[in-house]
Amino acid sequence: MRLIGILALLFASSCIAQNQNDFKPASSNVLDAQYPKVDSQSRVEIRFRAADAAKVRVNFWSGPKADMDKRSDGFWTFTTPPMAPGLHYYTIIVDGAEVSDPGSTAYFGGSKWASAVEVPEAGADYYLPQDVPHGQVREIWYHSNVTGTWRHALAYLPPDYDSQTKTRYPVLYLQHGGGEDETGWIRQGKANFILDNLIARRKAKPMIVVMANGYASRAGYQVPDLTGQPFGSPMFLKVMQERMSAFEDDFTQVLIPFIDKTFRTIPDRDHRAMAGLSMGGMQTFQVTFDHLDLFSYIGGFSGAVNVFQMGNNKLNTKTAFHGAMADPRAFAKRVHLLWIGVGTDEPDRMKSGLEGLHASLDEAKIQHVFYQSPGTSHEWQTWRRDLKDFAPRLFQSTVQ
Amino acid sequence: MRLIGILALLFASSCIAQNQNDFKPASSNVLDAQYPKVDSQSRVEIRFRAADAAKVRVNFWSGPKADMDKRSDGFWTFTTPPMAPGLHYYTIIVDGAEVSDPGSTAYFGGSKWASAVEVPEAGADYYLPQDVPHGQVREIWYHSNVTGTWRHALAYLPPDYDSQTKTRYPVLYLQHGGGEDETGWIRQGKANFILDNLIARRKAKPMIVVMANGYASRAGYQVPDLTGQPFGSPMFLKVMQERMSAFEDDFTQVLIPFIDKTFRTIPDRDHRAMAGLSMGGMQTFQVTFDHLDLFSYIGGFSGAVNVFQMGNNKLNTKTAFHGAMADPRAFAKRVHLLWIGVGTDEPDRMKSGLEGLHASLDEAKIQHVFYQSPGTSHEWQTWRRDLKDFAPRLFQSTVQ
Repeated sequence: MRLIGILALLFASSCIAQNQNDFKPASSNVLDAQYPKVDSQSRVEIRFRAADAAKVRVNFWSGPKADMDKRSDGFWTFTTPPMAPGLHYYTIIVDGAEVSDPGSTAYFGGSKWASAVEVPEAGADYYLPQDVPHGQVREIWYHSNVTGTWRHALAYLPPDYDSQTKTRYPVLYLQHGGGEDETGWIRQGKANFILDNLIARRKAKPMIVVMANGYASRAGYQVPDLTGQPFGSPMFLKVMQERMSAFEDDFTQVLIPFIDKTFRTIPDRDHRAMAGLSMGGMQTFQVTFDHLDLFSYIGGFSGAVNVFQMGNNKLNTKTAFHGAMADPRAFAKRVHLLWIGVGTDEPDRMKSGLEGLHASLDEAKIQHVFYQSPGTSHEWQTWRRDLKDFAPRLFQSTVQ
Repeated sequence: MRLIGILALLFASSCIAQNQNDFKPASSNVLDAQYPKVDSQSRVEIRFRAADAAKVRVNFWSGPKADMDKRSDGFWTFTTPPMAPGLHYYTIIVDGAEVSDPGSTAYFGGSKWASAVEVPEAGADYYLPQDVPHGQVREIWYHSNVTGTWRHALAYLPPDYDSQTKTRYPVLYLQHGGGEDETGWIRQGKANFILDNLIARRKAKPMIVVMANGYASRAGYQVPDLTGQPFGSPMFLKVMQERMSAFEDDFTQVLIPFIDKTFRTIPDRDHRAMAGLSMGGMQTFQVTFDHLDLFSYIGGFSGAVNVFQMGNNKLNTKTAFHGAMADPRAFAKRVHLLWIGVGTDEPDRMKSGLEGLHASLDEAKIQHVFYQSPGTSHEWQTWRRDLKDFAPRLFQSTVQ
């Protein structure tokens, strides 16, 4: 008994020692940056140099917002409580200046190149590079007669694209969220590794994934000065609406034909899917329901549901979207997949909107998938899981 | 006379008015960011929000370093004198914290995601996207048994690569500078647009351009903590040397075979070039002269010449690089192109080193090209011009 007690004490103290000492640089850091660090309990230590500052705060966008402590060496430090797994955006506020942490890789979010820290998820390797064939991500530029500009997009090509030169592939169009850009699904989302791993295990059909820039302005449109306009303000929304319409036209009239011309696609609605997160979910619902001649698979990841014009979180399935859902059986035949996802820890407004949408669809017997990501918020771990669940459901009936 | 005087006065005042009012958001800004702005005289206005800061400075790495002025609205401002054309890195120092400007696109430089502002060059459109066929930039991942890790590289494929499926292409390996990474030549350098434009005008042969990450550590190597170690310190140099050796092995033993397996290359020394800027120039000289069996075209852009072990800026051409240059005629037959460039406004140490190298080569009658970029410093405009001069000289005798 006494021996067991001593052993237990030794074991416990070694655990404590280990927990105190197993902070390691995050995988999201730039080369050689020691901070931020993450420990085995998913705590994050931020360290930031600001020798002459009076006040330094850390601002996790979906996490702690706290004053940092000044050390004698000019650095400021803060350690979070255990965090949910995944990639967490954060900024540092130095005497009123909101800036990025130079130790972090820059990820485009919040309309700027922001910091983020990757907290590993135990047992989850589906978004890590593994010893499987890797697809390539290609940067493409196309000229749009809608915007009058050169536009940049990314396209993931599956591993065998270059060797199977007779094969044609279905296409998933995958959109980023508000304040992000076309790089988000690769840099933050690791969509390429998710697809590589699913395809290698034959869980998903080999497919092309196109990631477009979600902002567009018609040629000649003067964007008003948005300085000081918060996300969601009336002027911000007006600009967003104008851009949404330009985006829809560029997307359907220029980008899709360009992709079908550039890559060996199967260029019909049975082999074309669209999904997006948050603002990209809103864009997905609008574009796909306006163009059911072009799409037959639809995914909304924490998708902004305001586009459904839902009152009291209920959807009128008879009238919504030009009445596309009015006849559930006809809709199920026409749309091979309607997929909706949300994280269980997302803000209430988002959660209740999507739960309400799900309930309305259920009530009207409209075939769909509703997925809940356990313990994650309006963040990339939710959307990685969404893609992992969504992609295997695509093109199963329509591609050999 | 009086009328002319009045007209002249009107004209002059309209010029002044125009000069005062033609500041426009830089092309390097993120979407909707109004600052930094650039005017027709190449002056740059920086504006940065830091409401509670006591002191804010702007630090152009090859330009002004100055205190900014506080405005009543919480923003700080500074306008530069006219700047040289090109992309200028800068950081903001807020009460001792050196950070990036959230208005700027983030460019990887100085071992962090830094800010930069693009100052247009009148009449220079060779690095802008034009109405010509565009190549694709592909992101590739390969597993290295030298480093024991997955490594990321970029490859530019010329416009007709996907349609001319029987054609094989020569390859230029193009390296970034110290503190930068494999994204530099595309993001900062616009190498893809430079090649698109040269190829469209038949000034350069269609070629593949591979951009590797210039840092490598052998599997198991523990990088010492470099916190607080300035660029160029002894410990920094020791780590760099270890990495240089690992880089050379990864590059020649893993990357090149991977590229030759992955793309339709012409896999021999007559169709393989290497060039790099600054640290990448040093790597180019070391790798190519160690492996003349692999390369026949060599370019050093503001290349660190310490690798030549030159005393008093003179090169011993008889002994340097295993004696590869000892016989100038044999060397000229073996190496199709030795190309060296420097900006006329680069720091003296760099300039005198490269001028000394050029003089030594001339004196020994070793065939080479020496290019000077007028009025530019150790910055990307120099290297864009270098590539524009260098690429057309490649593979002219060896590709139809």
